[in-house]
Amino acid sequence: MPSINVQLFDGRPVEIKRELAQALTKEACRVLGCTPEAVDIVFTDVKRENWATAGVLWSDK
Amino acid sequence: MPSINVQLFDGRPVEIKRELAQALTKEACRVLGCTPEAVDIVFTDVKRENWATAGVLWSDK
Amino acid sequence: MPSINVQLFDGRPVEIKRELAQALTKEACRVLGCTPEAVDIVFTDVKRENWATAGVLWSDK
Amino acid sequence: MPSINVQLFDGRPVEIKRELAQALTKEACRVLGCTPEAVDIVFTDVKRENWATAGVLWSDK
Amino acid sequence: MPSINVQLFDGRPVEIKRELAQALTKEACRVLGCTPEAVDIVFTDVKRENWATAGVLWSDK
Amino acid sequence: MPSINVQLFDGRPVEIKRELAQALTKEACRVLGCTPEAVDIVFTDVKRENWATAGVLWSDK
Repeated sequence: MPSINVQLFDGRPVEIKRELAQALTKEACRVLGCTPEAVDIVFTDVKRENWATAGVLWSDK
Repeated sequence: MPSINVQLFDGRPVEIKRELAQALTKEACRVLGCTPEAVDIVFTDVKRENWATAGVLWSDK
Repeated sequence: MPSINVQLFDGRPVEIKRELAQALTKEACRVLGCTPEAVDIVFTDVKRENWATAGVLWSDK
Repeated sequence: MPSINVQLFDGRPVEIKRELAQALTKEACRVLGCTPEAVDIVFTDVKRENWATAGVLWSDK
Repeated sequence: MPSINVQLFDGRPVEIKRELAQALTKEACRVLGCTPEAVDIVFTDVKRENWATAGVLWSDK
Repeated sequence: MPSINVQLFDGRPVEIKRELAQALTKEACRVLGCTPEAVDIVFTDVKRENWATAGVLWSDK
């Protein structure tokens, strides 16, 4: 606790994910008062053709 | 609002996703009374070996 | 297949969910060429204090 | 983009969610280089009887 | 690893969830060769008016 | 009902998924008293660089 899922466009390098995992974990622990070991984060890479806003695929924008 | 996630078997061409995104967004707006910009849709492609019904993988059916 | 999850603000009456379930199922079948029995939809009611955009809870907007 | 879901034990006051939404959004924007408007966060309150680790419900620990 | 989410109709007593958490954890460990501590399970209670199959809410069946 | 999602590290062979699908379905039916046909399971393969615990990616451990 907590368990965090982050959906983001694919193509992000591992350096970005590493930094984001550190930052989100740090903030979650600070605000919720939990230990880092309690924080699980899963990133879900989403292709632009798999994400639509306002009915339009991001690969079409 | 709303946020819609659609799990479907992989292998669908982008034309199908484009049409489905349009159709689901249109219906969500009509029924919920929201603007298209409020509707986010994410498609999750699922391999047949990753989906089981009645305990049997779809890749085995 | 497919399995659809819809996150929407809570407070929607069942009549709206009934109509939305019918509409989304109909469109999914039309576009994907599947039978209605293959379509599962789950609605997730989200309280305004549990949804944030741009870092602001919707209960604060 | 990105869309963040946070599962946490229920009972957290809205002040905590407000602060967490701000903090996670700020860090996501900093690391990913996106605007705050692009960040959606949904909190899912989970009862202790609905979360198990090592096969034991947290309500039993 | 692994992280398991179980959507089920609401109304199940805690005794059922306790037994199901134990059983799923045991089987996951046996098949995947992991320790029980590695297994997280979250149950999501779904109201019958929030689940539709074939376009019909389960509260209407 | 129920619908089960299992997030696990990628790289697992289909034989493991087949066995796990059978085992989880059997236990769900036994405990919940449902038929196998009512059980849907989706596996989500997660790369080690997409999963973090305590702020550290599993690909870095």
